[in-house]
Amino acid sequence: MKRLKWNGWGYEGEEFPQDRTKKIIEVLRSFLGISEDDFSPSVNLEQINLPDPKIDYQLLQRKLKVSSVSVEKYDRVLNSSGKSYKNLVRLRKGIIKKFPDAVVYVKDKNDIFEILSFCENEKIACVPRGGGTSVVGGVDTEEISSPVLVCDLTYLNKVVDVDTKSLTSRVQAGVRGPNLEEQLRNYGLALRHYPQSFYFSTLGGWIAARSAGHFSSRYGKIEDMIQSIEVITPRGIVKNFDVPSTACGPDIPRAFAGSEGILGIITEAVVKCHKIPTKKFSTAFVFPDFETACEAARRIIHSEIFPPLLRILDEREHMISSLLSGRPYEGGSLLLLGFESDDETENIVRIEFEKTSQICIKSGGKDEGKMRFEDWKKEYFEQPYLRDVLMDFCIVVDTLETATSWSNLINLYRKVKEAMEQAIFSETLGGVTCRVTHVYTTGASLYYSFFAKAQKGKEEELWWKIKKSASDAISSYGGTISHHHGVGRDHKIWAQKELKDSLVFLKGLKLSLDPKNIMNPGAVFDI
Amino acid sequence: MKRLKWNGWGYEGEEFPQDRTKKIIEVLRSFLGISEDDFSPSVNLEQINLPDPKIDYQLLQRKLKVSSVSVEKYDRVLNSSGKSYKNLVRLRKGIIKKFPDAVVYVKDKNDIFEILSFCENEKIACVPRGGGTSVVGGVDTEEISSPVLVCDLTYLNKVVDVDTKSLTSRVQAGVRGPNLEEQLRNYGLALRHYPQSFYFSTLGGWIAARSAGHFSSRYGKIEDMIQSIEVITPRGIVKNFDVPSTACGPDIPRAFAGSEGILGIITEAVVKCHKIPTKKFSTAFVFPDFETACEAARRIIHSEIFPPLLRILDEREHMISSLLSGRPYEGGSLLLLGFESDDETENIVRIEFEKTSQICIKSGGKDEGKMRFEDWKKEYFEQPYLRDVLMDFCIVVDTLETATSWSNLINLYRKVKEAMEQAIFSETLGGVTCRVTHVYTTGASLYYSFFAKAQKGKEEELWWKIKKSASDAISSYGGTISHHHGVGRDHKIWAQKELKDSLVFLKGLKLSLDPKNIMNPGAVFDI
Repeated sequence: MKRLKWNGWGYEGEEFPQDRTKKIIEVLRSFLGISEDDFSPSVNLEQINLPDPKIDYQLLQRKLKVSSVSVEKYDRVLNSSGKSYKNLVRLRKGIIKKFPDAVVYVKDKNDIFEILSFCENEKIACVPRGGGTSVVGGVDTEEISSPVLVCDLTYLNKVVDVDTKSLTSRVQAGVRGPNLEEQLRNYGLALRHYPQSFYFSTLGGWIAARSAGHFSSRYGKIEDMIQSIEVITPRGIVKNFDVPSTACGPDIPRAFAGSEGILGIITEAVVKCHKIPTKKFSTAFVFPDFETACEAARRIIHSEIFPPLLRILDEREHMISSLLSGRPYEGGSLLLLGFESDDETENIVRIEFEKTSQICIKSGGKDEGKMRFEDWKKEYFEQPYLRDVLMDFCIVVDTLETATSWSNLINLYRKVKEAMEQAIFSETLGGVTCRVTHVYTTGASLYYSFFAKAQKGKEEELWWKIKKSASDAISSYGGTISHHHGVGRDHKIWAQKELKDSLVFLKGLKLSLDPKNIMNPGAVFDI
Repeated sequence: MKRLKWNGWGYEGEEFPQDRTKKIIEVLRSFLGISEDDFSPSVNLEQINLPDPKIDYQLLQRKLKVSSVSVEKYDRVLNSSGKSYKNLVRLRKGIIKKFPDAVVYVKDKNDIFEILSFCENEKIACVPRGGGTSVVGGVDTEEISSPVLVCDLTYLNKVVDVDTKSLTSRVQAGVRGPNLEEQLRNYGLALRHYPQSFYFSTLGGWIAARSAGHFSSRYGKIEDMIQSIEVITPRGIVKNFDVPSTACGPDIPRAFAGSEGILGIITEAVVKCHKIPTKKFSTAFVFPDFETACEAARRIIHSEIFPPLLRILDEREHMISSLLSGRPYEGGSLLLLGFESDDETENIVRIEFEKTSQICIKSGGKDEGKMRFEDWKKEYFEQPYLRDVLMDFCIVVDTLETATSWSNLINLYRKVKEAMEQAIFSETLGGVTCRVTHVYTTGASLYYSFFAKAQKGKEEELWWKIKKSASDAISSYGGTISHHHGVGRDHKIWAQKELKDSLVFLKGLKLSLDPKNIMNPGAVFDI
């Protein structure tokens, strides 16, 4: 069975394509002034020292019917962290001091009741974990003061039942993206939720973090795709009645979407599916600048056309994307457009596609055709692997994202970019790029990537300086601290400001379901 | 200023068109066997005796800056009840024994803090009230054991600001439908939310009850139309950050949609607007039977076409609707179809309309043209007035609704209809009709109307027998106890079953925001 890397993205043995790695390193070497001294490979697993587990894991094992408890080094190290830059830089240096005391692989949801009662009785923190791909400290265990048990849910990976007439499916929450789509495909259905972490992350993780995907501009974020949810909390099961819509009391699934494991463990959900698309319509338009491209996107959405995929690369991101795919960059901002249909909807979707293209052209766009779109699609799942390569050379690299109204979009875009560039250029070389990843009737999300050359040993410090500048600017200029990565632990300072008075509500919710604060303590907010 | 009827639907002076009243009464007289003895007009307001108010309303008045407190008879009687059949039959007979002790007309939201703290200190229940049109006991005060203060919010009726670039508007929650649309129209915008109570009900009431409207099949229910919300609870303000989408913590607006005043007072919301439509496309198809029509609707929705209006009248409802509008009934079930567009979207909407029509024809429908649609539209807002007329003749008349998956729709439809018919025909004459009012990718809602001749003095008993039979059948055969009317007090028995384990969550939520249980106690669930 493939093992996940404990200190990088993806499964062991996978890496960013070597030929392109070389080219990128070459470019960056001269641009950022990298020398041989900067080479900083990861420590080996053997070099990491673990304290003995502080929980009676054998007692726990005896209580469980099917699930298994591990205290193996690999399991404890892997499960100490998510995939944030901070996580990886610390793991690679071997400087993490605190690890989870045990990892339980849940193989039957009934065992969860035993686990939670064990944790409550023994004062142990329980950190639920799906794919472990959080990039904002959602599954970090390092700062939790009590002993920690990580609850891996990836064995709960079955499609339980499918209603093809109603296009719904009841699914166990630990299923990873590819496995979910494969199981649904047997029934002619698809979920069409493609976050960049798709290959590793799970349905439960998507719900916990309010994940967005590739096609969310039409199909919605994960919270729009679920019809019902089952959560096991320290105070019992919460599960809503499974109907298309109801007015029977406050909305239950949405109160758990975004809860990041602090309220309980999401065990199942009924998801709304689609018929498998059979036709694709895609292209890319070059606009004179980012602002003009954004205005075209707004016009498209305000014509009540919702392309599954609509992304806009700002000038800098367009330039780098051209570089990576070996195409000449001739200036401007790139708007990527992707529609899909089944046989039944083909003629309507074709007209939507044509109409959208017309709006782009009227708004100053030049049709570049399908190839630019294909390039980008290829890059989408590869990008996270590139980070590992760059980290070998002391390059800080991360992404962050926000959302705001159309009327504030360009203002926020500029302010955050300026703040990040100032943080970088005041001490080193690097760059900031941005893309619009999701569009709504009322606004859009902005997704920034940045890279900067750090002094050896000062990587985390530089990373935090840039991250903090960006987050301060987001918070000051009307953006949300996260559109789809979540709060985790890294965004807590700003989430506190954003949630403000609502914390009375969230804390009440937390204390009513998890009065002893055993569930992922320290994520989202402090009690 | 127009005054609302205290014992019927609408404003004083309004009534169901007299010429058609006569015709309907004539038909029913022979069909139900009504005689002169059955005539049961309402008592006058003068005939109702009120106990003295049990709260120190003068003390409250002194605490308020702008809002005014009333203990006038009309105010106390009107505000004792919503507009359920049970409410009206009791008011008309003058048998309600307990009335709210005072009514406060809130004119500044800052006064709400004073009101809630007064209620907490004095152990007074606070019942927030918008239009007061609940048909399920959502605003009833009769069964509340403590003294009661009703909080009328209809003076908080301003559109606070409008962002035309982002198509959003911040609106005070007490605004009624027509006033809201009028204020938005000045900015070229519209909300397009048209529940049957549109003329009287308020934005806050819609959110509190998870209201659906005329065009919800495309634009969504009210919970889909709000981007942010402000609620004043006994433990402070809850307000989410206003962005198109966020992953910053659990979803706040949705936790209050459906809360029916039990958590706090909704004071403001940011709503997502539309450009005002300039073109309409509508028609009606006759199908051999209800099941065939429902199958056509499923095919339409599964082609990812969402008509703003798609309703299906079952055979009996189609017959009665034809009767009411003076058209011949030639059998079958009627599918009503309504699209709308602005100039920008006209060509796409036209194609959606044509494609939908093709699906209907392929599925066995016969195009009846626009007139049937126009008839129905006229009836939509008139229907509630008819109830008052029928009540004069001892006729029990009410509506109830549910939703379920496509795969369970016809089964549920039949079971509920059978249960209701059995309850009626076992002791009297009457009828049951049904329509599909809202369609989703995963299912649809069913909306039943019934009427039955009661013995004088036994109206409420007969009403409850039919209502209970319907609700038992809904609960036994996979329907939700309410799709858009809410739980109120009348649905509590079945809501309890439906919410089951989730009550731990809802009660926790309630106690954290309203620990002294002053907010609309007894609605939705019992603490």
